[in-house]
Amino acid sequence: MTEATPPPTRHVTTTRIVAVRGAHLEFRGDRVVGEEPLEIRAAGPGQDPVAVAITMRTPGFEDELAAGFLKTEGLIDGPEILRFETGDPSEMNQPDDRITVRLARPFDAGVVPERHFVATASCGICGKASLDEVAVRSDPIPDGPIVDRRVLLALPDLLRAAQKAFDETGGLHASGLFTPKGELLALREDVGRHNALDKVIGAMVRAETAPDTGFLLATSRLSLELAQKAAAVGVAVLAGMSAPTLAGIELAEGAGMTLLAFARGDGFVCYTRPDRLRGR
Amino acid sequence: MTEATPPPTRHVTTTRIVAVRGAHLEFRGDRVVGEEPLEIRAAGPGQDPVAVAITMRTPGFEDELAAGFLKTEGLIDGPEILRFETGDPSEMNQPDDRITVRLARPFDAGVVPERHFVATASCGICGKASLDEVAVRSDPIPDGPIVDRRVLLALPDLLRAAQKAFDETGGLHASGLFTPKGELLALREDVGRHNALDKVIGAMVRAETAPDTGFLLATSRLSLELAQKAAAVGVAVLAGMSAPTLAGIELAEGAGMTLLAFARGDGFVCYTRPDRLRGR
Repeated sequence: MTEATPPPTRHVTTTRIVAVRGAHLEFRGDRVVGEEPLEIRAAGPGQDPVAVAITMRTPGFEDELAAGFLKTEGLIDGPEILRFETGDPSEMNQPDDRITVRLARPFDAGVVPERHFVATASCGICGKASLDEVAVRSDPIPDGPIVDRRVLLALPDLLRAAQKAFDETGGLHASGLFTPKGELLALREDVGRHNALDKVIGAMVRAETAPDTGFLLATSRLSLELAQKAAAVGVAVLAGMSAPTLAGIELAEGAGMTLLAFARGDGFVCYTRPDRLRGR
Repeated sequence: MTEATPPPTRHVTTTRIVAVRGAHLEFRGDRVVGEEPLEIRAAGPGQDPVAVAITMRTPGFEDELAAGFLKTEGLIDGPEILRFETGDPSEMNQPDDRITVRLARPFDAGVVPERHFVATASCGICGKASLDEVAVRSDPIPDGPIVDRRVLLALPDLLRAAQKAFDETGGLHASGLFTPKGELLALREDVGRHNALDKVIGAMVRAETAPDTGFLLATSRLSLELAQKAAAVGVAVLAGMSAPTLAGIELAEGAGMTLLAFARGDGFVCYTRPDRLRGR
């Protein structure tokens, strides 16, 4: 598992603004977060790439975003990834508007047509063509890790401190992978909460991180799609800094995942499987 | 234009939680916001409905969500709406998982196939099958309204105060339509920032509100899709409480729309067309 590193170029841009504070006006430059489309494609050996999704995302970590998206959509397992192809091989892992995940096994284009769609900064169930397809999917979730409540209480500040080094814009969601002892293994950011989680999960997929290595913390609210993504990789604990939705809670309940929300200040709320928490 | 009214049933649900505050644990019930799929369909006179999108949304104001979505996607103008059809006519304007917008003119199903998709709680550019289709679309934006800076400074508190009456969950985004004098004309909420905006725009469409009636304020960050939706109805001023993205700013710039963000406390930041602001 690699340490969190600063995102590459085009992450932020300077723009001219008028800052208003009460009766005071200031004309100056300010930093703004980037948001650009990325087409995610998949292909087996010798196959032409198949477009699976377009997502509006913050440039950076395109390979992990693609891997995480395909994994949490149930289209790949992970280990079968051979390489990532962008417009120019020399631009590997650099921002681009198109990335192909090349697999060691044939990619069945038949799974895509009805799922050919655009995902945006907060999608997670995109691509289902009817209500019947908005279904819950989840890998078996291991019993562990058992987490000390005091460790959990410290995490939001850890994540915010790590994020602060990157986010000059105030416009980024972040997701982090932590060990049960509270060590930050990976931090990824994006204007879309669901992309930030996909990127961290993609980092897990690339490093072949076991699901019981730790747990996930997101700065955002926990809606159905976020719970679904965490469940898809079999993570036992998903925490969020903002509110959950009922659908997110119900998915976590069904999957046997511990769902925590409002993780901020000196508290959090546990919605499902509190048996994984210990400490007094 | 109708006043903001409380959303209907299924908006919030009670669930069992464990609230952790430092070393203190409390087992109790808590209110959680609903999130359910809605299939949005359109049809002309005597036509079978065509499924246009599925969105995960907070139940309530389904008709306005559907109208706003179809309007901001450029699929309808608005005045041609005859009625809204749900599973049972007696359930009009009640939560359901499917709603049909019945139009006074034929609906061209041909515009949908490549746009047949699922939108989620934060989609706005869903349904474009290739990068080329992620294009900017905007109605002409009138020069007005001219807004007093002091009016703008007061709005976030107004919106939050109005929202507070509804949101017991901490999980809802809100969008409001205000007059240039700062009067709240409509307030709509949703777990998805983009649904909340669609609902307010749908309320404008239903009431045939002129775009220069006022301006829009969203509790969320302003990404491309939110700017695109506001531009699609020709609103001159879009304000957000959180950060904008570069793509959102660029869209506003191109459309001639005034984009404000970080509207909270005693300040805001103006990114485009500051000439619409007046006051000292």
